[in-house]
Amino acid sequence: MSELGLIQVYTGNGKGKTTASLGLVFRAAGHGLKTCMLQFMKENSDYGETKAAHYLPGFKLIQVGRNDFVDLENPAAIDVELAQQGWKLAQELILSKEYDMIILDEINVAMACGLIDTDEVVKFLSGLTENHTELILTGRYAPQPILTIAHLVTEMQEIKHPFSQGIEARKGMDY
Amino acid sequence: MSELGLIQVYTGNGKGKTTASLGLVFRAAGHGLKTCMLQFMKENSDYGETKAAHYLPGFKLIQVGRNDFVDLENPAAIDVELAQQGWKLAQELILSKEYDMIILDEINVAMACGLIDTDEVVKFLSGLTENHTELILTGRYAPQPILTIAHLVTEMQEIKHPFSQGIEARKGMDY
Repeated sequence: MSELGLIQVYTGNGKGKTTASLGLVFRAAGHGLKTCMLQFMKENSDYGETKAAHYLPGFKLIQVGRNDFVDLENPAAIDVELAQQGWKLAQELILSKEYDMIILDEINVAMACGLIDTDEVVKFLSGLTENHTELILTGRYAPQPILTIAHLVTEMQEIKHPFSQGIEARKGMDY
Repeated sequence: MSELGLIQVYTGNGKGKTTASLGLVFRAAGHGLKTCMLQFMKENSDYGETKAAHYLPGFKLIQVGRNDFVDLENPAAIDVELAQQGWKLAQELILSKEYDMIILDEINVAMACGLIDTDEVVKFLSGLTENHTELILTGRYAPQPILTIAHLVTEMQEIKHPFSQGIEARKGMDY
């Protein structure tokens, strides 16, 4: 890609943030682009994206969390450590210039609950020059400084959700 | 799938509606499900999803429009005809029970600008019994009766968009 990469943010409480970024990966694969998704706070081999990753040429999926919900109010030390490792890896991947698109999945939440320092992320992203990698940041609670430096921000708003009608998450449809 | 299919709607003026539904397809493929996306008002072989469709087993992509923008205020007769054909096909696909998930891409717009009759769609969808196919309706301007019968509604809100900063749609990133 010759154009400079933009920073896209998908945030809000509605369904479709990680899902939309998987759609971006799908589309990009159609154009022969190289993509990488780094999933913070997730470790689950039963996710649809984990199982389907090998179908798309040029796509790499990396999970840097553990298979347990992070206590957002009071995260465990191991969650901080894993997120920090993830952020270190994210910077290496971006600087490697190997990918046309890198998705930092749930990084907004990781920043919002203090697993990663927002100012550090903002400083790194704003300091990128000649960056040709499209960067996608997903997750609820995107901090304001992130919205400020982003070029595209979509807020997924939950208008109606079946979970609130007592329907549980379904394999294939919700994960 | 043993569960009954739900009706999901992705609407609003933000980026990520068609993209999220492509992500749903990607995930579903990971779980071995059969999916179909019927794109209303679109006919373009240069879309990422058109080019990547063959990568995902069990996924079928059908376009039922023409490669020209529909004048939403005053649609041409050919656009009405193509949308009507699309809606007829959509009903056949749903009733065939061959798919675990069917995406009616941009059908909300097709209803909102009168290419398809909203009441007819609502009547058909509400009349489905023992429907095990997850139905995804995308596009801006989802009519209220559709939101009423849907189980899940996400509104993608544009908070910031590069097009309004003079940046044009980019292959691989925006289509």
